Amino acid sequence: MARATLDETTSNSGLEAAIESTWFRNLITSLIIINAIILGVLTYSEFMSPPTVKTLQMLDHAITLAFVLEISLKLIVYRFDFFRSGWNWFDFIVVGISLVPGGVAFSVLRALRVLRVLRLLHVVPMMKRITEALLKALPGMGAIVAVLSLLTYVYAVMATNMYGNSTNEEVQQLFGDLPRSAFSLFQVMTMDGWRFEVVQKVIDDGHPWAPLFFLTFIFVASFAVLNLFIALVVDALAAEQKAATTDLLEDIEEDVEHAEEERDEILALLASLRSEMAELRAAVQENRARD
Amino acid sequence: MARATLDETTSNSGLEAAIESTWFRNLITSLIIINAIILGVLTYSEFMSPPTVKTLQMLDHAITLAFVLEISLKLIVYRFDFFRSGWNWFDFIVVGISLVPGGVAFSVLRALRVLRVLRLLHVVPMMKRITEALLKALPGMGAIVAVLSLLTYVYAVMATNMYGNSTNEEVQQLFGDLPRSAFSLFQVMTMDGWRFEVVQKVIDDGHPWAPLFFLTFIFVASFAVLNLFIALVVDALAAEQKAATTDLLEDIEEDVEHAEEERDEILALLASLRSEMAELRAAVQENRARD
Amino acid sequence: MARATLDETTSNSGLEAAIESTWFRNLITSLIIINAIILGVLTYSEFMSPPTVKTLQMLDHAITLAFVLEISLKLIVYRFDFFRSGWNWFDFIVVGISLVPGGVAFSVLRALRVLRVLRLLHVVPMMKRITEALLKALPGMGAIVAVLSLLTYVYAVMATNMYGNSTNEEVQQLFGDLPRSAFSLFQVMTMDGWRFEVVQKVIDDGHPWAPLFFLTFIFVASFAVLNLFIALVVDALAAEQKAATTDLLEDIEEDVEHAEEERDEILALLASLRSEMAELRAAVQENRARD
Amino acid sequence: MARATLDETTSNSGLEAAIESTWFRNLITSLIIINAIILGVLTYSEFMSPPTVKTLQMLDHAITLAFVLEISLKLIVYRFDFFRSGWNWFDFIVVGISLVPGGVAFSVLRALRVLRVLRLLHVVPMMKRITEALLKALPGMGAIVAVLSLLTYVYAVMATNMYGNSTNEEVQQLFGDLPRSAFSLFQVMTMDGWRFEVVQKVIDDGHPWAPLFFLTFIFVASFAVLNLFIALVVDALAAEQKAATTDLLEDIEEDVEHAEEERDEILALLASLRSEMAELRAAVQENRARD
Repeated sequence: MARATLDETTSNSGLEAAIESTWFRNLITSLIIINAIILGVLTYSEFMSPPTVKTLQMLDHAITLAFVLEISLKLIVYRFDFFRSGWNWFDFIVVGISLVPGGVAFSVLRALRVLRVLRLLHVVPMMKRITEALLKALPGMGAIVAVLSLLTYVYAVMATNMYGNSTNEEVQQLFGDLPRSAFSLFQVMTMDGWRFEVVQKVIDDGHPWAPLFFLTFIFVASFAVLNLFIALVVDALAAEQKAATTDLLEDIEEDVEHAEEERDEILALLASLRSEMAELRAAVQENRARD
Repeated sequence: MARATLDETTSNSGLEAAIESTWFRNLITSLIIINAIILGVLTYSEFMSPPTVKTLQMLDHAITLAFVLEISLKLIVYRFDFFRSGWNWFDFIVVGISLVPGGVAFSVLRALRVLRVLRLLHVVPMMKRITEALLKALPGMGAIVAVLSLLTYVYAVMATNMYGNSTNEEVQQLFGDLPRSAFSLFQVMTMDGWRFEVVQKVIDDGHPWAPLFFLTFIFVASFAVLNLFIALVVDALAAEQKAATTDLLEDIEEDVEHAEEERDEILALLASLRSEMAELRAAVQENRARD
Repeated sequence: MARATLDETTSNSGLEAAIESTWFRNLITSLIIINAIILGVLTYSEFMSPPTVKTLQMLDHAITLAFVLEISLKLIVYRFDFFRSGWNWFDFIVVGISLVPGGVAFSVLRALRVLRVLRLLHVVPMMKRITEALLKALPGMGAIVAVLSLLTYVYAVMATNMYGNSTNEEVQQLFGDLPRSAFSLFQVMTMDGWRFEVVQKVIDDGHPWAPLFFLTFIFVASFAVLNLFIALVVDALAAEQKAATTDLLEDIEEDVEHAEEERDEILALLASLRSEMAELRAAVQENRARD
Repeated sequence: MARATLDETTSNSGLEAAIESTWFRNLITSLIIINAIILGVLTYSEFMSPPTVKTLQMLDHAITLAFVLEISLKLIVYRFDFFRSGWNWFDFIVVGISLVPGGVAFSVLRALRVLRVLRLLHVVPMMKRITEALLKALPGMGAIVAVLSLLTYVYAVMATNMYGNSTNEEVQQLFGDLPRSAFSLFQVMTMDGWRFEVVQKVIDDGHPWAPLFFLTFIFVASFAVLNLFIALVVDALAAEQKAATTDLLEDIEEDVEHAEEERDEILALLASLRSEMAELRAAVQENRARD
C-alpha cells in the first residue's frame, strides 16, 4: 500500500513501521485469540455470576476499542489506500458490526460479533496462505456452479408447479413455493434423506412418476458436481507438474542450445581449415610450377 | 451448418447473417432470462392479482411466439440441416412442448414449459463450453454404468424374490416389485438411510442374513463407482499433462534433429577436408617424384 | 487354455473352434439376456396367468439346460484346464446353483439363480475389459482394507464392552453383541444417520463421553478411506503417465545415442586426418631435406 | 536404536538379537492375534460357562504378562532409547492400561484393553508401511484442519447465541451450549440428516432465515474439505510423477553432458589439426623460399 503524501512522511513512517511490524501483528493476534475465548466463555453466562459476566463483557468492549484504534491507525497511515485491500474491508466490516448498539432487535447483530475472530484467517501468516489459496480456487468453479444453479432453478420451478398445490402439509413444506423447492432440491443434491424424507412423500401424495423427476435431477447434478471436482483436481495438478518437470527440462534445453553453439564453432573451424588446406595446395602446386 | 440451395442465397444470406449475429444471440439470451423470471414469479400466482397474472401469462405467450419465430427463421435458413445439430433438436422440443394446449390433463406438460430456460446452456458461450465439456465426459462412463446397471438389476431380482412376498407394509414398499427393489437398491448405493430405513426393516421382517446381501452390494457398487470416478480423473489428467510436457519435449526433439543435421554437415566437411588432404598429398608426392 | 491330449485333436479341434467362435459367444450372450428378461418377468408371477408362468419357467429350464450343455462341452474340450480360468469356475458355480432342486427350504438358492445373468460380465468383451480392470485394482486396496478392518474390530469390541449391557432396546440393537457393533460402526463409517440414530442413542443411555469415542473412529476411518482412494488414483495415474511421456522421451534417448555414434565417427575422422597431416609434414620435410 | 553402554555389550547383544529377530516378532504377532480372538470371544461371556470364561480370562492375563515381559526386555536392552520410538510409547501405554486393576469404576479402562490389538499396526511389516504412510500424510492436512476448526468454532458461538436459548427441547439438544453446537455443526458438515434433523428444527423454532446461516456454513466447510482432499491428491501425485519422469530425464541430462565432453574433444583435435596445418604451411613456404 502506497504511503500518504510526503508531508506526513516522518510521523507516518514511524506509525507505518509500527503497524507493519511483527510485534504489532502478534499483539493483534493475541487480542483476537483472547477475544475468541471470552466470546466462547460468555455463551455460559447463565451459569456464571453477574460480576464475572460483566467483567468479561468489559474486556470484550476493551478489545473492541483496541480493534477500532487499530483500524483508525491504519486509516491514518494508508488513507484511501486502506480500502484497496479486501482483507481491510473484511476487518472494517466485522469490527463495525460490533459498534452497532446492542438491543433485542439486534440480537442477530450481537451474535455476529464473533465473526471478528475470523480475522485470524489473514492475520496469522500460515492461515493467510491457506485462505488465499482457497480463494484462488473459487473462479475455476464459477462456470459449473452457474450451470448447477440454472439446473436447480429450472427443476425448482417445475417442482413448485407440479407438487406445490398439495394439501399434504409435508409436501407443502418441501415444495410449497420456489425457495422451499430450491432448498429441498439442494437437500436431494446432498443425498440427505432424499428417498424417504423427500421423494417418498411426493410419491405418496399421488405422483407415482416422481422418482423419474428426482432421479434425473440426481444424475445430472451429481455428474456436474463430479466434473467440478475433477476440474479442480486437474487445475491444481497441472500447475504442480509444470513446476516439477520444468526445471530439469529447462536445464536440458540450455545444454542443447549450448551444444548448437559448439557445433557452429566446429563447422567454422572446419571451414577455415579447408580453405587453409586449399591455399596450401595452391602453394604446393605453385612450388611445382616453379620448378 | 451448410446453406440451403444457391438460389435463395441472397435473401437467405441476409437472414443467416442476422441469425448468427451477436445482437440476435443477445436478444434471444435476454428473452430466455426474462422468461425465466416470469415463470419464477408465476409460481406465486396465488398471491398476485388476476390482472397481474394475466399480464405475465401474456408476456410468456409473447416470448413463446418469439421463440417459435426464431426456430422458424432457422428452419427457413438451414432447412433440413437444422436437424443436424443436437442443440437445435433440443430447442425444437422444449419450444414445441410449450405449444401443446394447456389443460388439466396436461399439467405436467405445462410444468415442463420452464425447460426452455435450459436453452441458456447452449446460447450463452461460456455455458456452452462447460456443457459440451460435460457431455464429452459421458462416453467414458458408459461401460462402468453398464456394469453397475447389470449388478443392480440382478440384485433387484434377488431382493424381490427373497423379500417381496412380505406381509410387512414397509418391506413391501421397499422390495414389493422389481422397480421398487431397484429404487431401494439405488437408495442403498447412495448410502441414504440404508441401515435403518432399508436393511433393518428387512432384518426385522425375519431375514437375519440380510446384512450379508446388502453389504456385498454396497462394497461392489461403491468399488465400481470409485473406479468410475478414478477413470474420469485419469482421462482428464492424461489429456492435460500430455499437453503440458509435450511442448517442451517437442522443442527438445527439434533441437536434437537440428543437431543431427549439423553433425551431417560436419561429416561432409570432414570428408571434403579428407579429399583435399589426399590431393595435397598427391601434389607433394608429385613434387618429390619430380625432383 | 491348452488342448487335451493329441489323440482327440481332430474331433476336439472342431468342437473347440465352435466353442471359441464369435457366433457361439453371441448365442450364449443372447441366451443370458433372454434368461435375464424371463427372470425379471417372473417376479410378476402373481399377476400372470398360470399357463404364462409355466411357459416362462419351462423356457428358463430350457436355457439352464443349454448352459449345462455349454459347460459340458467346455469340460470335454478343455478337461481339467477348464478349471484354470476363474471365469469358468464362476460359470460352473452359478449354473450349478440352478441345478439344486427347488423347495421351500431352498428359496434363497432359487433366488440366487439370477446370478447367472452376471455371466454377461465376462461374456461380453467390453464388459470383460471393465470387469478385469476393476478386479486388477483390488490388490492395491488390500493393505488399507486390512487396517480398516482391524480398526473396526477393535472399536467393535470396545463398543460391545462399554455399551452392550444396556437395558435400552435400541442400544442393544446397535451394540448388543460383536457383529451388531461392527455393523453399527460400519454404518457410522458411511456417515448414515450416525448422529441421531447411533451416537445420540448411546449418549442418552448414560454415556455423555460417547461423542469422543465415535468422533475418533470417524476421523481415523475417514482418513484411512481417503488415503485408500488417493492411493488408487495415484496408481492409475502413474501407469497412465508413464505410458504417455515415455514414447517421446524414448525417441529423444535414441537420437541422443545416435548423436554419440556420429560424434565418435567425427573424432575418428579427425584423428586419421591428423595423422595424415603429420605424414604429409614428414613428406614435405623429407622433400626439403632432399633438396 | 543405539545400544546401552559397551560394558553390557555381551549379554545385551544376545538379548538384542533375540528381540530384533523374526521369530520373536512372529511370536509377538501370534500372541496379539490370539489375544484379539480371546477378547472377541469374551464379549459373549454371558453365554459361556463360568469355567470357560475364567480360562479365557487367565489366558488373557498370561498374554498380558508376556507383553509386560516383552517391554521389560526392550527396556533392559535399549534403556532410555526405548522411549525414542513413538511405537514403543504406544506399546508402553496400551500394555500399561491393562495393568490398571479392574473395578466397576474402571470399566472404561477395562474396555480399552483391546487397544493393545492395534499393536499389529506396527508389528506386522506390511501394516507398518501403510500406517506410517498414513501418518506421513497428516501434516499436510494441518493447515486446512486449523481453518476448518476456526470456522466451526466461530459458527458454534454464533449458533449458541442465536438458537441456544430456545424452549424447544430438540433445539436445546442441538445448540444449547457450545460443545453441542460444535457437534451439531460437525453433523451438518458430514451432511448427515442436516435438513430435517437440524436446520428444519431451527426454522420451526422461529428462525426463518436459519437456512442462510447453515447454507453458508455448508458451502464454506465443503469447499475447504474439498480443497483439503485436492491438496492431498496433488502432494501424493507430485511425489509419484517426479520419480517417474526424473529417471529418464536424468539419463538424457547425462547424455547431453557426455556429448559436451566429446565436442570439447573434437574442438581440441581441430585445434591441434590447425597447428599441424600451420606447421605444414611453414614447411611448404620454407621449401619455396629455399628454391
